[in-house]
Amino acid sequence: MTKTVAIQGMEASFHDIAAKQYFGKDITIVACETFKDIFAALKNNQSDFAICAIENSLYGSINETYDLLLKYHFSIIGEVYLRIEQCLIGFKGTRLQDITEVYSHPVALAQCEEYIDAYLHNAKRLEFHDTAASVDKIKTLSNKHAVAIASKEASKLHGMEVLAYSIETNKQNYTRFIVIQAAADKMDDNVNKTSMIIKTSHKPGALYDALGVFAKRSINLSKLQSRPIIGKAWHYIFYVDVDAGVKDEPLKAAIIDLNKQGCDVKLLGSYKNGTIEN
Amino acid sequence: MTKTVAIQGMEASFHDIAAKQYFGKDITIVACETFKDIFAALKNNQSDFAICAIENSLYGSINETYDLLLKYHFSIIGEVYLRIEQCLIGFKGTRLQDITEVYSHPVALAQCEEYIDAYLHNAKRLEFHDTAASVDKIKTLSNKHAVAIASKEASKLHGMEVLAYSIETNKQNYTRFIVIQAAADKMDDNVNKTSMIIKTSHKPGALYDALGVFAKRSINLSKLQSRPIIGKAWHYIFYVDVDAGVKDEPLKAAIIDLNKQGCDVKLLGSYKNGTIEN
Repeated sequence: MTKTVAIQGMEASFHDIAAKQYFGKDITIVACETFKDIFAALKNNQSDFAICAIENSLYGSINETYDLLLKYHFSIIGEVYLRIEQCLIGFKGTRLQDITEVYSHPVALAQCEEYIDAYLHNAKRLEFHDTAASVDKIKTLSNKHAVAIASKEASKLHGMEVLAYSIETNKQNYTRFIVIQAAADKMDDNVNKTSMIIKTSHKPGALYDALGVFAKRSINLSKLQSRPIIGKAWHYIFYVDVDAGVKDEPLKAAIIDLNKQGCDVKLLGSYKNGTIEN
Repeated sequence: MTKTVAIQGMEASFHDIAAKQYFGKDITIVACETFKDIFAALKNNQSDFAICAIENSLYGSINETYDLLLKYHFSIIGEVYLRIEQCLIGFKGTRLQDITEVYSHPVALAQCEEYIDAYLHNAKRLEFHDTAASVDKIKTLSNKHAVAIASKEASKLHGMEVLAYSIETNKQNYTRFIVIQAAADKMDDNVNKTSMIIKTSHKPGALYDALGVFAKRSINLSKLQSRPIIGKAWHYIFYVDVDAGVKDEPLKAAIIDLNKQGCDVKLLGSYKNGTIEN
């Protein structure tokens, strides 16, 4: 049976491209408008899996995804790194100087800010919930002065024209997506990365002590993200990604140490790391 | 001479309230539409000082402010903590069930999400660049079915009615603002908080070692925020706030240790900590 995967956006969105990179092309996508809807789709059994962006190399962490991981008790079972190439898409023959409106997801607009400032400084920036859907939007508008920013795949899907390729300010533009399941199937033996949430005590040095359990075992931290504890102003929890599988003895021992220190540890998942292209 | 202070939003915005809490009422505000504009105003000598939100206890860190601190070489000279009480504001006599549009800053909309879901579920959420300006907007619209979310001060300023007080989901709703100057005047003797950016080496354990220089001197970290290094995917810099003045011997020694470890340290400012109301 075809796997169903909840994503943000529609076909040819970056989430869709990431989903197909992970699962292959033979999947059925469940298109969601927001990140919240992705998690709701998984909760309501509308999909077997979900893919959700968690970080972009230019924009940084996507806080909403971190907060949703805390709210829902789902498992991260994998990750995908995708090079994000933004294209300026419009009707054939549109000249840059005639463009009055540019539609895209706010993150995509931010990623292409320098290009927009330089070449489309008269254009109004209009935020849309999805890059691929913004291509559909300008097609429907039938307005030659409106353009969208999205993937080349979205341009192709909607039969539109790429007016400019790779217009993002910085080419080191990658997004990390996590693959989520409501409850993880049996874990693979080759998992080598683990994501967890650590709540330390509020004592000075508590975070330092917590990180020490990894350092003394030479377990590398690939990510440390603080988020506020809701209802306890200026107290934080820490999202930590480490380069070790949860079955590895050093990581097991590190988690026991964290518990001994009085930390609450919530495992989000252990999985095979994704490949970072360069 | 009256001090000029660049803020985001207009009179009666939360930035304006924070500015007056710090400097007193006798200031001239320079109203800016975006956070970027605040920093530009300071750079272009349009104001003596600037006030900029950097973190909210529910929303978390405001990444844009962190990135602007890196981009500009300004000094943080103070901080303000403000309790954010969001009010539903409209024309007198408006009934909740008749409301079709709710205008506010996206962060304010997010903070009041549960209230909107429960009482205004038919209302369209419309993002606006400023809470106080959204009150002016609905006044201009002259549409009894449109409301805004803003401070009670904004309601009063525009002669509108508060339809409901304190509609934020969580009452532990505080925003921390930083006070910035292009170049700091002579530093006060009573500074007890310091903000800095630390760039560690990319070796495993480098962050742990960096935090160790504070831990071993019992210098408390009140905040640790990672941000991506633009152009170096999956490498990070760390914004650190510590509870010590830059003239304190332990902090001086800690910074020397960081340099010895090969860390780049950029001091953002040393100042008197703000008062957190409870």
